Amino acid sequence: MTEARASNDLWGGRYAEGPSAIMREINASIGFDRKMWRQDISGSLAHAKMLAHVGIISTEDEAAIRAGLAGIAQEIEEGRFPFSEALEDIHMNIEARLTERIGEAGKRLHTGRSRNDQVALDVRLWVRDAIDGLDAQIAAVMRELVARAAEHAGTVMPGFTHLQPAQPTTFGHHLLAYVEMLSRDRGRLADCRKRLNESPLGAAALCGTGFPIDRHMTAAALGFDGPTRNSLDSVASRDFAAEFLFACAMCATHLSRFAEEIVIWTNPYFGFIKLSDAFTTGSSIMPQKRNPDAAELVRGKTGRVIGSLVGLLTVMKGLALTYFKDMQEDKEGIFDAAESLALGLAAIGGMVRDMKPQVARLAEAAGAGFSTATDLADWLVRELRFPFRDAHHVTGRLVALAEGKGVDLAGLTLAEMQSVEPRITDGVFGVLTVQASVASRTSFGGTAPANVARMAAEWQERLG
Amino acid sequence: MTEARASNDLWGGRYAEGPSAIMREINASIGFDRKMWRQDISGSLAHAKMLAHVGIISTEDEAAIRAGLAGIAQEIEEGRFPFSEALEDIHMNIEARLTERIGEAGKRLHTGRSRNDQVALDVRLWVRDAIDGLDAQIAAVMRELVARAAEHAGTVMPGFTHLQPAQPTTFGHHLLAYVEMLSRDRGRLADCRKRLNESPLGAAALCGTGFPIDRHMTAAALGFDGPTRNSLDSVASRDFAAEFLFACAMCATHLSRFAEEIVIWTNPYFGFIKLSDAFTTGSSIMPQKRNPDAAELVRGKTGRVIGSLVGLLTVMKGLALTYFKDMQEDKEGIFDAAESLALGLAAIGGMVRDMKPQVARLAEAAGAGFSTATDLADWLVRELRFPFRDAHHVTGRLVALAEGKGVDLAGLTLAEMQSVEPRITDGVFGVLTVQASVASRTSFGGTAPANVARMAAEWQERLG
Amino acid sequence: MTEARASNDLWGGRYAEGPSAIMREINASIGFDRKMWRQDISGSLAHAKMLAHVGIISTEDEAAIRAGLAGIAQEIEEGRFPFSEALEDIHMNIEARLTERIGEAGKRLHTGRSRNDQVALDVRLWVRDAIDGLDAQIAAVMRELVARAAEHAGTVMPGFTHLQPAQPTTFGHHLLAYVEMLSRDRGRLADCRKRLNESPLGAAALCGTGFPIDRHMTAAALGFDGPTRNSLDSVASRDFAAEFLFACAMCATHLSRFAEEIVIWTNPYFGFIKLSDAFTTGSSIMPQKRNPDAAELVRGKTGRVIGSLVGLLTVMKGLALTYFKDMQEDKEGIFDAAESLALGLAAIGGMVRDMKPQVARLAEAAGAGFSTATDLADWLVRELRFPFRDAHHVTGRLVALAEGKGVDLAGLTLAEMQSVEPRITDGVFGVLTVQASVASRTSFGGTAPANVARMAAEWQERLG
Amino acid sequence: MTEARASNDLWGGRYAEGPSAIMREINASIGFDRKMWRQDISGSLAHAKMLAHVGIISTEDEAAIRAGLAGIAQEIEEGRFPFSEALEDIHMNIEARLTERIGEAGKRLHTGRSRNDQVALDVRLWVRDAIDGLDAQIAAVMRELVARAAEHAGTVMPGFTHLQPAQPTTFGHHLLAYVEMLSRDRGRLADCRKRLNESPLGAAALCGTGFPIDRHMTAAALGFDGPTRNSLDSVASRDFAAEFLFACAMCATHLSRFAEEIVIWTNPYFGFIKLSDAFTTGSSIMPQKRNPDAAELVRGKTGRVIGSLVGLLTVMKGLALTYFKDMQEDKEGIFDAAESLALGLAAIGGMVRDMKPQVARLAEAAGAGFSTATDLADWLVRELRFPFRDAHHVTGRLVALAEGKGVDLAGLTLAEMQSVEPRITDGVFGVLTVQASVASRTSFGGTAPANVARMAAEWQERLG
Repeated sequence: MTEARASNDLWGGRYAEGPSAIMREINASIGFDRKMWRQDISGSLAHAKMLAHVGIISTEDEAAIRAGLAGIAQEIEEGRFPFSEALEDIHMNIEARLTERIGEAGKRLHTGRSRNDQVALDVRLWVRDAIDGLDAQIAAVMRELVARAAEHAGTVMPGFTHLQPAQPTTFGHHLLAYVEMLSRDRGRLADCRKRLNESPLGAAALCGTGFPIDRHMTAAALGFDGPTRNSLDSVASRDFAAEFLFACAMCATHLSRFAEEIVIWTNPYFGFIKLSDAFTTGSSIMPQKRNPDAAELVRGKTGRVIGSLVGLLTVMKGLALTYFKDMQEDKEGIFDAAESLALGLAAIGGMVRDMKPQVARLAEAAGAGFSTATDLADWLVRELRFPFRDAHHVTGRLVALAEGKGVDLAGLTLAEMQSVEPRITDGVFGVLTVQASVASRTSFGGTAPANVARMAAEWQERLG
Repeated sequence: MTEARASNDLWGGRYAEGPSAIMREINASIGFDRKMWRQDISGSLAHAKMLAHVGIISTEDEAAIRAGLAGIAQEIEEGRFPFSEALEDIHMNIEARLTERIGEAGKRLHTGRSRNDQVALDVRLWVRDAIDGLDAQIAAVMRELVARAAEHAGTVMPGFTHLQPAQPTTFGHHLLAYVEMLSRDRGRLADCRKRLNESPLGAAALCGTGFPIDRHMTAAALGFDGPTRNSLDSVASRDFAAEFLFACAMCATHLSRFAEEIVIWTNPYFGFIKLSDAFTTGSSIMPQKRNPDAAELVRGKTGRVIGSLVGLLTVMKGLALTYFKDMQEDKEGIFDAAESLALGLAAIGGMVRDMKPQVARLAEAAGAGFSTATDLADWLVRELRFPFRDAHHVTGRLVALAEGKGVDLAGLTLAEMQSVEPRITDGVFGVLTVQASVASRTSFGGTAPANVARMAAEWQERLG
Repeated sequence: MTEARASNDLWGGRYAEGPSAIMREINASIGFDRKMWRQDISGSLAHAKMLAHVGIISTEDEAAIRAGLAGIAQEIEEGRFPFSEALEDIHMNIEARLTERIGEAGKRLHTGRSRNDQVALDVRLWVRDAIDGLDAQIAAVMRELVARAAEHAGTVMPGFTHLQPAQPTTFGHHLLAYVEMLSRDRGRLADCRKRLNESPLGAAALCGTGFPIDRHMTAAALGFDGPTRNSLDSVASRDFAAEFLFACAMCATHLSRFAEEIVIWTNPYFGFIKLSDAFTTGSSIMPQKRNPDAAELVRGKTGRVIGSLVGLLTVMKGLALTYFKDMQEDKEGIFDAAESLALGLAAIGGMVRDMKPQVARLAEAAGAGFSTATDLADWLVRELRFPFRDAHHVTGRLVALAEGKGVDLAGLTLAEMQSVEPRITDGVFGVLTVQASVASRTSFGGTAPANVARMAAEWQERLG
Repeated sequence: MTEARASNDLWGGRYAEGPSAIMREINASIGFDRKMWRQDISGSLAHAKMLAHVGIISTEDEAAIRAGLAGIAQEIEEGRFPFSEALEDIHMNIEARLTERIGEAGKRLHTGRSRNDQVALDVRLWVRDAIDGLDAQIAAVMRELVARAAEHAGTVMPGFTHLQPAQPTTFGHHLLAYVEMLSRDRGRLADCRKRLNESPLGAAALCGTGFPIDRHMTAAALGFDGPTRNSLDSVASRDFAAEFLFACAMCATHLSRFAEEIVIWTNPYFGFIKLSDAFTTGSSIMPQKRNPDAAELVRGKTGRVIGSLVGLLTVMKGLALTYFKDMQEDKEGIFDAAESLALGLAAIGGMVRDMKPQVARLAEAAGAGFSTATDLADWLVRELRFPFRDAHHVTGRLVALAEGKGVDLAGLTLAEMQSVEPRITDGVFGVLTVQASVASRTSFGGTAPANVARMAAEWQERLG
C-alpha cells in the first residue's frame, strides 16, 4: 500500500493531507470562538488602559492599541475581518491583526496576561451577556403570562393530577404556576451571574505575574465586582459555565412542561386552547389540522441543553489543575444552550401572547368528573364536624351513588344524599358548583379568582 | 400453557403472585421514603398546631396528636415502628399508626392538607437538612485545606498546564485554589437553600383549600421564609431538588479533580505527597505499595451524582402539571447524591489532613524544565523594554541554547546569554531561581508566598 | 476546639470515629456486591476444577473446595452467612469463610487468579444472567402485545402525528409497533450478551500468570464462548456493562412511550382504554377516578436507567489502564437498571394483558377530523391521474368546504364535490369511510387489518 | 410601552420581526439537514424507479425525475443550489427545485410516500454511511496499533493498577488492549448497522398507503435487507440513532482513556513516549515544552458525544406515537457525534503512528518498585507448594526486608531470603528479572512477548 493510500485509510479522505490537517481541525477554535470577539476586544481595551495607567506601556501605545482595536471591531462588524484558521483562535486573530495595523505597540498588549486568563475572561463576559439577554427574555415571557393570567383570573378549567381531572382551578392560576417557575429560573441565572462576576484577568498563565498590574482596575472597568482571589483557580475552573448550563437546562425543562401542555391542550379531545397560525404548521391536505410544531420543538430542544450540561460536567470530571485543552470544549455547549433557550423563550412567549383559551370548553370540562367532591368532603368536615378521613369515606359513597345514577353530585337530590348521610342539609348544594369551588379556595396561594387577580397584580407591579 | 405458567413467563418468578405483587413493588415507596420520617413528623406537628390555632381542630385533638407523634418518633428511633408496605409510604404509615394510637383525632390531622403538599414539604425539609449538613462538611474541608495552605504557603512545587510543568507555584497556593472552588460550591448550596425555603404546606392536593388555614404560621414554625405563592406550582415542581443535585454534582466534580491529583501525586514518578495508611489500601504481597483507593472512589462517585441529576431532569422533562407519580423518582437520587457527597467530603477532608507533601521532591521538580523562562522574558520586558512578544522570542532562543548545553537557564554564562541578546546584564540571574520566581508573582491572587499566607489568614478568619 | 470536636466538624457525627469509619464506608462493597454470590461461587468452582485438572492443586483440595463452597451457598441461601464489612467484598467474604471451613485448601483456591479478574468475571456473569432474565420478560410482554394485536387487528382507532389525529389505524397495528421496538431491544441485549461472553478469568491481576492454567477450560465450564484475548483489557474494561445499561435505557425509553400513551389514553377526554384496578390507584373520595400510577412509574423510572448509563460512562471517561477502584462504581448502576427494567416490563405486561380498549369510543374518534382526507387525495391521483401535489391541493379545498358546512367529507354531496373538481365521480364515496381507509392500506407494513392479522400470526409463531 | 418595544422585549432584537421570524428559526432545519442531500436524492431515485416499475408513474416521468435529480446533485456539489429557508428542509428544497426544473413530473414523485418516511429513510441512510466511514477509520487505527504492538511485543514497561506500578508488561501488550476495545466498538457499530438496515420508505405518513408500491424493491435498491414491518414504528422510532450515538460514545470513551494515558506518558516524570511535533503545540517561550493538545481534545470531545446521547434519549423519553417535531432534534447530535469521533480517531491514529516509546526509560521503570514480587510469590507456590495466600504473606516480608535495605528483590542475598523462609533456593533469582517476569506470563492473553507477537500477527491477518 502506498503511503498516500495508507494515510487515506487512516484518516479518511478528509484528512488526506495528514497530521497537519487533523491538528488544524481538532485544535482550531476560530470557527466558533469568534462569537466572543466583542468580549475579547473589551478585555483588551481594559487591559491596555490599565497597563498605561501603571506605566507598563506608554500612553501613546495605549492610544494606538485603542484605535487599532476600534478599527478591528469595525472590520468584524462589517464582515471584512480576515479570519485565519492558522491563527487558531479569536484571541490570536485579533492580536495578530492589531500588530499588523499598529506595529510594535501591538506586541506590548499581551504584557502581564496570557491566553489562559484571556480565554477565561472572554467566556465569563460572554456568559454574563447571555445571562442578561436571557433574563430580559424570561421577564418578557413572565409579563405575557401575567397579562393573560390577569385576564383569565376567573376562567375556570380542570386542574389535573395524573392527567386526571381532580379539582376545578382557573386558567390564570395555571399560568401563574409557570410564572413562579420562571421566576426561580431568573433567580438561578442571577445567582450564577453574581458568582461568576469576578475578573480572572491578570491570573496570567496560571501563577499571576510580577508586573505591577492593577487587577482591581481592570475588574472595575469590565463591570466585575472585583478580581478573582487565586490565579490557579482562575484559569482552571469552569463551574460558572456548568452552573449557567444547569440554569438553562432547568429553565428549558420548565418550558418543556408548558410545551407538553400546549401539545395536549391543542389535541381536539381536549380543545382547551387554539394557537395562532404563526406557531403551528398545517397540511396542504388537511387545512383544519394545526400541528403545534413550535411547542414540540421547544420540548425537544430541552434534550440538547441537558446534553450540553452533561457534556461539560463530563469534560471537567477528573481533570487535574490547571489548564487543559479539554476545556476548549466548554464553548460550543454554552453557545448552543443560550441560543436554544432564547429560541424556546421567544416561541413560548409568542404562543402565550397569541393563544386563545376556549372558555366554554374549559368550563364544561371543569365541571365534569365529580370535580367538586373535595368541596363536599370539606363541607362535611366544616359543617358536620366529620373527621377528615371519615368525610372522605362518605363523599366516596355519594360519588358512587351519583355515578350509578349517571348524574353529577349536584344532580343528586337531598333525599338521595341523606340516604348516605342523614345529617346532610341543602346547604351542601352551595359548594357543589365549579364557581363556588374555586371561589372558596382562598388559602394563600390557592386558586380563588380573587387570589389569582391579586397575585397577577403583584407580579405586574414587580415586573414593571 | 397454564395460567400460572403464563404469569411466570410474563412477570418472572419474582412476581409470580401476579399484578398485586408488581403494583406493590413499583408503587410502594416506604422502602426509601422512611428516611424522611423526622421531616414528616415535624410537618404534622406544625400543621396540627396551626389547625388548633385557627380553630379547625380542638386543642385537645392537637395535644393528642402531639403526644401521638412523639410516641411514634420514639418507636421509629428505637426501631420498633411497624413499617407496612401495604400503607405504601411514610406519610400513610405514620398517619395510620397515629389513628391506631389516638383514635378519631388522628383522622382530623389531614384536614386542609393532602399527600401532594405533604410530600413536597417533606422533601424540601429533607433537602434543607442535607444542605445544612453538607455545608458544614464543606466548611470543615476548607478549614483543613486552609490550615495546610498556611503551613505550606512557601513550599514550592511545579505549576502545571497540560500536565506539563509550566511555572513554579506553591503547595499552599494550589490548595487554596480548591478552597475557592469549594467556597462557590457552598454558595450554590446556600442559594439553593434560600430559593427552596418556602413552605408548600397548605397547597393541598393542587388548588389550596377552603379551610381557614394559616400558611404563614406553619411556614414560620418550620423555619421557612414564608409560604409558596401558587398552589399548583407547589405540588408540581421539583426544581429545588434538581438544583440541589446540580450543586452536589458540581461539588463532586471539584472533588474529582482533587482526587485525580491525589492519584497522580502518589504515583511514584511524581512522589509529590504521601497519604496516610488510613486512606490507602495495600497489598499483602507488596507492602510498600499504597493504592489511593479512597481518592479513586471519590473520583468515581462523581459519576453517580451526575447520573442522579440527569435522572431527575429526565423525569421532569415534558411532564404536564401538576402531580404525577413519576415524581416519586426524585427521592432516591437526592438521598444517594447527598450520601455520596458527604462520603466524598469526609474522605477528601481526611486525606488533606493526613497527607504529607514531599517538600524536597516538590522543590526539585519545581526547578526543572526551564520553569523560570517566563521570569526571564518578563525581565527582558521590564529591564530592556522589549515588547512582550519579542521578549518571548528571545527567551525561546535562550532556552534552546540551555537545552542544547544540557544546563538550566541559570547555568548559562552571561556571555552565552549575550550571544543571543547583547544587552542582557547579570541582573538577569536574580530572577532565574524558583524562589525568586514565586516571590515575584505578587499580583493580586498571584502565587507569591506572602500573598498565599495573607489569603490563608483571610480564609481562616472567614471560616472561624 | 478539641480534637474530637474537630473530627466531628470534618466528618460529621456519622464518621465521628475518624478515618477508619470513612474508609470502611467508602471502600466496602459487600453491602451491594453480595448480590453476585452465586456468580462468585460458580467462578470459583470452575477455577478449582481447572486447577486440579492441570495439577496446580490436588484433587483432594478440589473436592474440599467444592464441598466448602456448596456449604457456603447453602448458608447464604438460608440467610445464615456471616457477612463481614471488614472483609470488604463478596469475594473475600466467601474465600475467608472457605478457609475457615476447609483450612489450607481454601488458601490455594486463589492460585493463578486475582481479585481483578475475579471481579470482572462475576460482573460479566451477573450481567449475562440479567440479560437472560430480561430477555424472557421482554418476550413475554411481546406475547401479550401480539395476543391483543391479533384480537384487535381490525379495531379502528385514530393514528396520531403531533398528537393530532392524522389517519385511521387499528389498535392491533399500534400494539405491533411496540412489538417491533421491543424486538430490537431484545436484539441489543442479545448482541451485548454475545459480545461480553468471553471469560476474563485467568487474566489475573493484569498480566496473566505463569501458572499453567487452562483458560479455555474455565471459559467452557462457565458457558463462555472462549477466554478474552488480552489480560490488560480483561481487567480494565467495562464496556460490556455500559452496553448493557444502554440496552436497558433504550428499552426503558420505549416503555416510557407506551406508558405516556397509557396515561393519555386513560384521560377521560380520550377514554381510549380502561385499565384494571390492579394497576391503578384510586382515591377514597373520588372512587370513579383511576390514576394510572403504574404507567407513571414506568415512565418515571426511565430517568434512573438513563442516569445509571451516564454515571458509568462518566466513571470510565479518561481512566488510564488498568484497574482503578473507580470501577467499583459499575455495580450499583447495573443492579438498579436491571431491577427497574424488570419491574417496568412486569408492569407494562400486566397492563397490556388487562387493559380494555374502548372499541366504540376508538371508532368514533377514528372517524372524526376528516381523517380520510389522504384517502380522497389518493383517489384523485389514482382515478383522475392528478399529480400528487395537485391532489393534495384539491383535497384541501374539499376539506375546507366540508368544515365550513359542518359536515364530514362523506357528508358532502357529489355536486358539492364537483363544484371544487368537476371530474369527481361518486366512486369517491367508497374511500371515505374509516373501514375503507384502513382496509386499503395494504402496502407491506401498512395498517390494513389483513396485514395486521398476518403480522400478528407471524409474531405468534416466532415467539412460540 | 409601544408594541414594537414590547416585541423587542419579548423576543429580543433578533426576533424583532415577530412570530414569523421565531417560527422560521425554530422550525427550519435546512441549516443542518442539507448534510443529507445525497441520501435524499438516492431515496428519491429508488422511489421513482419503483413507482414507474409498478405503473404508478410513467417511465417518461421517471426519466425526467432521474435527470432532474442528477442536475440537482450537480448544483449542490458545485455550490450553486439555491437553498431556501422558507422551504424549511432538504426534502422540500429538493422537491420544489425538481418541479421547477421538470414541471408536472416533479409533483408526482411524492406519490405513495410522505415526509415522515422520507426523513426516517434519509437519517437511516446517513447513519449507515457514517458507520461505514467510522468502521474504516477504526480499522485503520487498529492497524496502526497492531503494527506498533508487533514492533514492541518485547518492549517492557510497567503495568499499572491504581496508577501504581504493579507488574511488568510490554508496550505491545498494552497497545493490543486498545485493539480489543476498538474491536468491540466496531462490533457495536456493525450490530447497529445490521439492526437499522431496514427500509422505512413506504410507511408513508404513518399508516402505509393504498398505492400498489413495492417496498421490497426500494429496500433492495437502497441496499437494505428488506422493508420495516410496521408503518407506525417506522416513522416513530429513533432507537437506531440512539444506538449509533451510544456506539460512538463508547468508542469515544475508549479513546479518552488512551488520550489520558498519552497525557500522562508525556509528562516529564513519566517520560514514557515522545509525540511528534504534528500533534503537540509548543510555546514560543519554552520551546522544549510540548503540550499534548491533540490528546487533550480527544479526551475532551468525549463529553459532547455522551451529551448528544443523553440529548436524544431525553428527547425520545415519554413521546407518544407516532411522529412529533421533537424528533427533528435527532440530527445535529448524530452529525456532531460522527464528526467528533472521526476527528478523534484520526488524531489518535496519527499519534500512535508517530509516537516514540522511550524504550530505556520504560525498561527502567518496569524494574522499579518490587515489580516482580508476584513472580516471587508464584515461585513459592510452584516450587515450595505454599498455599497461595501464605506465599503472599512470605513475599510481603521479603519485600519489606528489601525495602528496609534499600535494594531490589534481586538485591537480597540468598541468606537474607532464607532468614525469612529457609526453604528458598537460589533458583528464585531466575524469576526476579523483568524479562523473566514477562516471559513467564504465557497464559492465554498474558503479557509474554511470544503471546503478544502471536496475537499481533493474528490481528494483522484479521485486519488485512
